[in-house]
Amino acid sequence: MPHSCAPSSQCPVVRLLSRYVPALDWGLHYNPHDLVGDVMAGTIVAVMLIPQGMAYAMLAGLPPQVGLYASIVPLLIYALLGTSRALAVGPVAMVSLLVATSLSQVAAPGSPDYWAAALALALMIGLIQVCMGLVRLGFIVNFLSHAVIVGFTNAAALVIGLSQLKHLMGIKIPQSESFFETAHHLAQAAPDSNGVSLGLGLTSLAVLLFFNRHLPQVLSRWGVPPAWIGPVSRGGPLLVVITTIALVGLLNLDSRFGVAIVGDIPRGLPPLTYPPVDLTLWQRLLPTALTISFVGFMESIAVAKSLASKRRQRIDANQELIGLGAANLGAAFTGGYPVTGGFSRSIVNFSAGANTGLASIITAGLVALVVVLFTPLFYNLPQAALAAVILVAVINLLDFRSVGHLWRVSRSDAASLAITFGAVLTLGIEAGIVVGFVASVAFYLWRTSQPHIAEVGRVGDSEHFRNVKRHPVHTCPGVLAIRIDESLYFANSKYLEDYLMQAVAEHPTANALVLICSAINHIDGSALETLEALVDNFREAGVTVYLSEVKGPVMDQLERARFVQHLGGKERIFLSTHQAIAALEQA
Amino acid sequence: MPHSCAPSSQCPVVRLLSRYVPALDWGLHYNPHDLVGDVMAGTIVAVMLIPQGMAYAMLAGLPPQVGLYASIVPLLIYALLGTSRALAVGPVAMVSLLVATSLSQVAAPGSPDYWAAALALALMIGLIQVCMGLVRLGFIVNFLSHAVIVGFTNAAALVIGLSQLKHLMGIKIPQSESFFETAHHLAQAAPDSNGVSLGLGLTSLAVLLFFNRHLPQVLSRWGVPPAWIGPVSRGGPLLVVITTIALVGLLNLDSRFGVAIVGDIPRGLPPLTYPPVDLTLWQRLLPTALTISFVGFMESIAVAKSLASKRRQRIDANQELIGLGAANLGAAFTGGYPVTGGFSRSIVNFSAGANTGLASIITAGLVALVVVLFTPLFYNLPQAALAAVILVAVINLLDFRSVGHLWRVSRSDAASLAITFGAVLTLGIEAGIVVGFVASVAFYLWRTSQPHIAEVGRVGDSEHFRNVKRHPVHTCPGVLAIRIDESLYFANSKYLEDYLMQAVAEHPTANALVLICSAINHIDGSALETLEALVDNFREAGVTVYLSEVKGPVMDQLERARFVQHLGGKERIFLSTHQAIAALEQA
Repeated sequence: MPHSCAPSSQCPVVRLLSRYVPALDWGLHYNPHDLVGDVMAGTIVAVMLIPQGMAYAMLAGLPPQVGLYASIVPLLIYALLGTSRALAVGPVAMVSLLVATSLSQVAAPGSPDYWAAALALALMIGLIQVCMGLVRLGFIVNFLSHAVIVGFTNAAALVIGLSQLKHLMGIKIPQSESFFETAHHLAQAAPDSNGVSLGLGLTSLAVLLFFNRHLPQVLSRWGVPPAWIGPVSRGGPLLVVITTIALVGLLNLDSRFGVAIVGDIPRGLPPLTYPPVDLTLWQRLLPTALTISFVGFMESIAVAKSLASKRRQRIDANQELIGLGAANLGAAFTGGYPVTGGFSRSIVNFSAGANTGLASIITAGLVALVVVLFTPLFYNLPQAALAAVILVAVINLLDFRSVGHLWRVSRSDAASLAITFGAVLTLGIEAGIVVGFVASVAFYLWRTSQPHIAEVGRVGDSEHFRNVKRHPVHTCPGVLAIRIDESLYFANSKYLEDYLMQAVAEHPTANALVLICSAINHIDGSALETLEALVDNFREAGVTVYLSEVKGPVMDQLERARFVQHLGGKERIFLSTHQAIAALEQA
Repeated sequence: MPHSCAPSSQCPVVRLLSRYVPALDWGLHYNPHDLVGDVMAGTIVAVMLIPQGMAYAMLAGLPPQVGLYASIVPLLIYALLGTSRALAVGPVAMVSLLVATSLSQVAAPGSPDYWAAALALALMIGLIQVCMGLVRLGFIVNFLSHAVIVGFTNAAALVIGLSQLKHLMGIKIPQSESFFETAHHLAQAAPDSNGVSLGLGLTSLAVLLFFNRHLPQVLSRWGVPPAWIGPVSRGGPLLVVITTIALVGLLNLDSRFGVAIVGDIPRGLPPLTYPPVDLTLWQRLLPTALTISFVGFMESIAVAKSLASKRRQRIDANQELIGLGAANLGAAFTGGYPVTGGFSRSIVNFSAGANTGLASIITAGLVALVVVLFTPLFYNLPQAALAAVILVAVINLLDFRSVGHLWRVSRSDAASLAITFGAVLTLGIEAGIVVGFVASVAFYLWRTSQPHIAEVGRVGDSEHFRNVKRHPVHTCPGVLAIRIDESLYFANSKYLEDYLMQAVAEHPTANALVLICSAINHIDGSALETLEALVDNFREAGVTVYLSEVKGPVMDQLERARFVQHLGGKERIFLSTHQAIAALEQA
């Protein structure tokens, strides 16, 4: 399976290797025209990633440098092994939240044990994702419906947003799993808010929202060249970080008003770390490791596919799992924490012109430069400013448009969405996903368990047969013709049986039943068993069953199962309904 | 919905009443011609039921009279409220086994608490089934596939059979949940077998099997009138019971050789009992109550439907739940234990000529007669003979033919069967059903998640389009035509996306993509979202998406979701593939 339309190397060794190291695909034939886009995109993403990395580490309950460490080696590894050319890997909000809720149960936030547990979690996720990729389990992500993902994402955005309000308000509240309990704690502690923190936070929020929502239009009205609008409007977080650091430093807001700041961040390259191999700990982390492996992959593959299809490139889900898993292994051994492909940074990367994985390599190099040289500059960075960065990111996660859209498309999708949303808020993120999945499968089974079945009759003197309830058609008292509009399987075979039994009971004069099979793509063992029993029982009741318009593969199946024999031979199966009715009317 | 083809009363009050009391349907217009069949069937079933009732009570760990009590009032109630005219309600093997495994965890077998718990279980099952019937949940039984039922029944037959070997061998072994542990205990205790018990048991078994399998042919060869063959060959259990009682009594086998006998059975009508209302007990019994409500209903409805369809009668699943639930309530208040419609007795009832519920009423009357007058006669009945009665019943439950059949029909059905079978033997009956259900749903989702999709081309100069991989067709480089052979929903929308992305990537010259929707009956929100994203992304990649042969209801859905607008208006949707290709080739 080619990973892209780019011309592949003719050497078979390189071609084989590039299946496992997709970077060879672009690396060996790097087109100099791609360089400008890659450098531009890599730089813009680095400017976004540095504050976001620190902010998400804070959300995960980890020191800020952990977020930066997780933004170096994992990016390099993904650039080599991933199949997406524009995916921006690193810390993301949803995964950070899952890390926080899970680790707070095994260690105290801020303690060395807590960080060690984060490394163990990254190692486990790396192993799980690589194994899933090797045994080609990438498909399982397809079983989460869009409705469940929207419900889940909206609820998670609310949970993440709520978790940041305490930093914005400069208060401390008890840790709680429950959305509603956290809201209650916040409301109780609100009168103790630190006004200066709140002021800094709300101002940062306003600036970020302005950059995000309105600056592009303003710049374009001022005649700024379009090529500059993107980079400038992405610079919001950088401006907020620099301004608030300056304010805190110049006015001593931390010592005078108790504004919480980031404090010391060690300088230097990421350390080599060894995640603890502690089976009790691993056992406790396993449910979260599985959830993050799954949710992280889901977020990543969704954006990677969407971006790839815009340039006619291909994403290989299993190789993606290997790439993301390896990136997590990299995080585990270089002082990081679980990572995945982020939604918003990837879109920025793509639209800023990222053509190949080189963009990610440039981002990683810039983050490394900051970690080696400039971390002391972040000493005075107020936590409220980082909280504002997270809040703006999660506001972009909220997706009300899809809610309305799903409501219009299908009521059962809307119900899946509502169930998932409610379950995430009340039962937690992991249980919420499971409940949503079960609900969406149940709705699907419910729908297919009641297929459309219609009694049909002849339209005038034509060879066409239509539903007797919708069209003026004529039927013959001895022949009952019924069209089934769905493949038959266990969940609808009893429905079919009920329908046919009632139809035959209501037509006491009928001695022939024609089943029109034009819409049946498959018949499973349960349905076949039901049909066999019906054929026998109807025969005893004096009704002979015939089939018409059976598709080729279904016919093969019926022959293999000796159903044709059971029915009474091939002469009971007609090519067309017209032939069937014509033959039976004469009889 | 009429329950049968019998002429309904013209009086609206009676018609309404007969919806809730289906017995009115046949009771008010009883046809004297039906009487002979009803009396005959009722008598034969009573002859079967008396030894079976005692044997199944023993299997459930209850005194023998409980099985007889459960064969009186519940039958009368079902005759009034059930919709099947030939269903023989009463104690059955599977339910008795479930009762035994559940009650042995809350009380000692043989103790008064144990019996009280059985009454509580019957009450709970009665309430659950009546409620399910009232809220019309009868459909849920449809979601168990035939493969799961076959796997479950075969495994349960082995479990039941194994549980009877200790009575046949006259030994005592520790109670165990696990099939393999019980087998191990039996093998260990085998040298201590009571030879006389074993001799009685094996001889009974041989006689019963001969009656069951060979007597009908022998009788017919001897020129016995066909009307007599059925009743005589059903008399095996009665013969075994009478003979072994006589042997034990005459030779004092119990005191001389320690043969275990049934002992004292109190004489008199069933007592009025009040099931204990103890919430802790109820909580512990709840999982079993739910399982029996479900399994009992499943066994019952399967045979009821099969028999009804042979006479063009109808079964109402929800009224059946009410009838069976009320029968269980009757059992709870008259010293019985959980009941349901039995498979083999119902077939005997039907083939012996049962025309209406009167047959069941006659059966109940005969059992009552025995309980009032003749229980002392059973004092010397050896337990080994009852075990033989159960063994023959479960041998008939084993269904290897269906195993082979399902294997030929579909590999995934065969896999569901094997998984259910293995899970019941290793994890127990209740967990086994759940595992089997999950496996069958997973296989179904798996199959529908990979729909058949084909690139098609024009056959010669015709208006027909066929799969390019199977037929010699010609395609046009600018137009890619793809036919999708399944409804689209969340589990296959990503597969479709992958397929289309790869197809477009492999056809760099294509600037039009025609999706042929003739086999799509429904599109859910996830699939629509995927299609919208694909339309947008392909547009950016220079490919315009068109649809052809969209069905009416799907078209309505697409319009409601504003997808038509999104696609670029109605002119992007063609009535036929021929029109689409013709128009796009010219462009």
